[in-house]
Amino acid sequence: MHVDYNEAAGFLLDNDNYLILMHQSPDGDTVGCAFGLCIALRKLGKKANVLCSDPFPKRYEFIHGDYEPMKFNPDKIIAADIADVNLLGSKLSHYGNYTDLCIDHHKSNSEYAGKLLLNSDASAACEVLYELLLCMKIPLDTRISECIYTGIATDTGCFKYSNTTKRAHIIAAELMDYGIVTERINRELFDVKSRARISAENYISSNTEYYLDDKCAVIAITKDIANELGASDDDFEGIASITTQLESVLVGVTIKEREDGKFKVSMRSTSETDVSDICAKFGGGGHKKAAGCLLSGSLEDVKLKLLSGIAPKLGMDLWLVN
Amino acid sequence: MHVDYNEAAGFLLDNDNYLILMHQSPDGDTVGCAFGLCIALRKLGKKANVLCSDPFPKRYEFIHGDYEPMKFNPDKIIAADIADVNLLGSKLSHYGNYTDLCIDHHKSNSEYAGKLLLNSDASAACEVLYELLLCMKIPLDTRISECIYTGIATDTGCFKYSNTTKRAHIIAAELMDYGIVTERINRELFDVKSRARISAENYISSNTEYYLDDKCAVIAITKDIANELGASDDDFEGIASITTQLESVLVGVTIKEREDGKFKVSMRSTSETDVSDICAKFGGGGHKKAAGCLLSGSLEDVKLKLLSGIAPKLGMDLWLVN
Repeated sequence: MHVDYNEAAGFLLDNDNYLILMHQSPDGDTVGCAFGLCIALRKLGKKANVLCSDPFPKRYEFIHGDYEPMKFNPDKIIAADIADVNLLGSKLSHYGNYTDLCIDHHKSNSEYAGKLLLNSDASAACEVLYELLLCMKIPLDTRISECIYTGIATDTGCFKYSNTTKRAHIIAAELMDYGIVTERINRELFDVKSRARISAENYISSNTEYYLDDKCAVIAITKDIANELGASDDDFEGIASITTQLESVLVGVTIKEREDGKFKVSMRSTSETDVSDICAKFGGGGHKKAAGCLLSGSLEDVKLKLLSGIAPKLGMDLWLVN
Repeated sequence: MHVDYNEAAGFLLDNDNYLILMHQSPDGDTVGCAFGLCIALRKLGKKANVLCSDPFPKRYEFIHGDYEPMKFNPDKIIAADIADVNLLGSKLSHYGNYTDLCIDHHKSNSEYAGKLLLNSDASAACEVLYELLLCMKIPLDTRISECIYTGIATDTGCFKYSNTTKRAHIIAAELMDYGIVTERINRELFDVKSRARISAENYISSNTEYYLDDKCAVIAITKDIANELGASDDDFEGIASITTQLESVLVGVTIKEREDGKFKVSMRSTSETDVSDICAKFGGGGHKKAAGCLLSGSLEDVKLKLLSGIAPKLGMDLWLVN
């Protein structure tokens, strides 16, 4: 059931003993939204904890601050930035049917929660949280502001992507009144890299293949290569955006071999080409400019399959190009 | 002579036939400020042209739009984002003593212009221009908004650096009302790379040297290497920030050999270490987090000299580390 800001605020103010869930492979938006809400609820004298199926990537450790779990029996379950129960991850999947309130910005939200506070125009779940806290009249502080800024900066690529709204800039401006050091947060989020990440980026830019008149860039990362680079999944986070850097590229494709040998495909568009259409053909989906799918077969076959789906979208015939 | 917004506005409204100068090695702020002001003055029915000593890097071509030089005898000379006459470049240096108004945000401005409109708290000269146009009551449009956004996004690293003010976010929000496609601008400014740029970045990340317990990263680009990579000065723009990506690095150093064999040194700090202090020792200067100097000698000597200046600032003794 969809609820508005007032209803969600009323629910949170009227209850207690909250467990706030993040999605698997946590990013800055789910982490910021969960911790931001947790800190705010505790400020009201309520009990609240956060939980995630996966460990946090190091870049989000600063959000953790002096957080300590409290001891209590959870009464209400909140989902932060979780569009579907299958994103809870194996360790939290049993909460799927017992989620009381979901705070989200994904248009694709599957409405699994008892109450859904959804604003699909928001750049991030943290933008929704900001409006919710305003509505609850909870005064912000540095810690809450850091959390909300982190979610918005993460999901907008530091105000760079097309989902950056006017409201995102205004909220960032307002958060700056609470003494957050945005430069330090952004360095953690966007600039600091492990040596393995640097190796991974080097490998990728030296091994990008260009197809379809340089309009399509393809990166393939097999299990063997990942091992050779000493790079974990964390080190490959956000790597798909590298495919779109060459000026001629309209569609970027990242193919990553999973533990089970299947290939996880991430597709990015820099133009009007709708990559969610292409991925849908292969059983996947996503947004117009960022989508994905899962494919089996040999790496070469997977590439060919993808290129045969991309070529007509770029107005090209695969068999006429080399 | 320092002037305030009202005085600068009055001067621009009362006169005509403007020549607006950009600094050499033009960046998005000088280009955005010059074109933004030029378009605004032409909207008032005045004659205005822009001029730069160097050609524009390709990434700023979109600012050019349908600009065509007008034919007239310049009466008033305006400098956009130019802190000192020696930044005019060889082709424009003769204008130095005849600049009527300078619009700037550099604290270090040498006050060479007849009138100086300086706001050193502004993130960019374009932020100063925005306030000035408000004061002149010139209605914004898409083209002017693109110019101003470009300057602010360039100088703040897309709202990432420590100079990003609350006001910068608010202005960005207000500019979005004029239909600018910030995503497209940011792609031009930050994401699109030439093949030579990609090669240069690959070379750099594979050849970065780490000193002083990995607290200092050094990149050296000789003339020979630049030739080998087929990379021009444009392709190395902003390369100094790459030095600071490794998580342990506190000071990043980029050494670039110039045509005359001297080495141009760019230093970046990610911490409280003041690199302008270090560069000042070598006859250079700049800001706390971004500074530079010019050194002669062999590359190895230059490195050693720099490290001997950096080590004590990091509380280390050069001779005790390997």
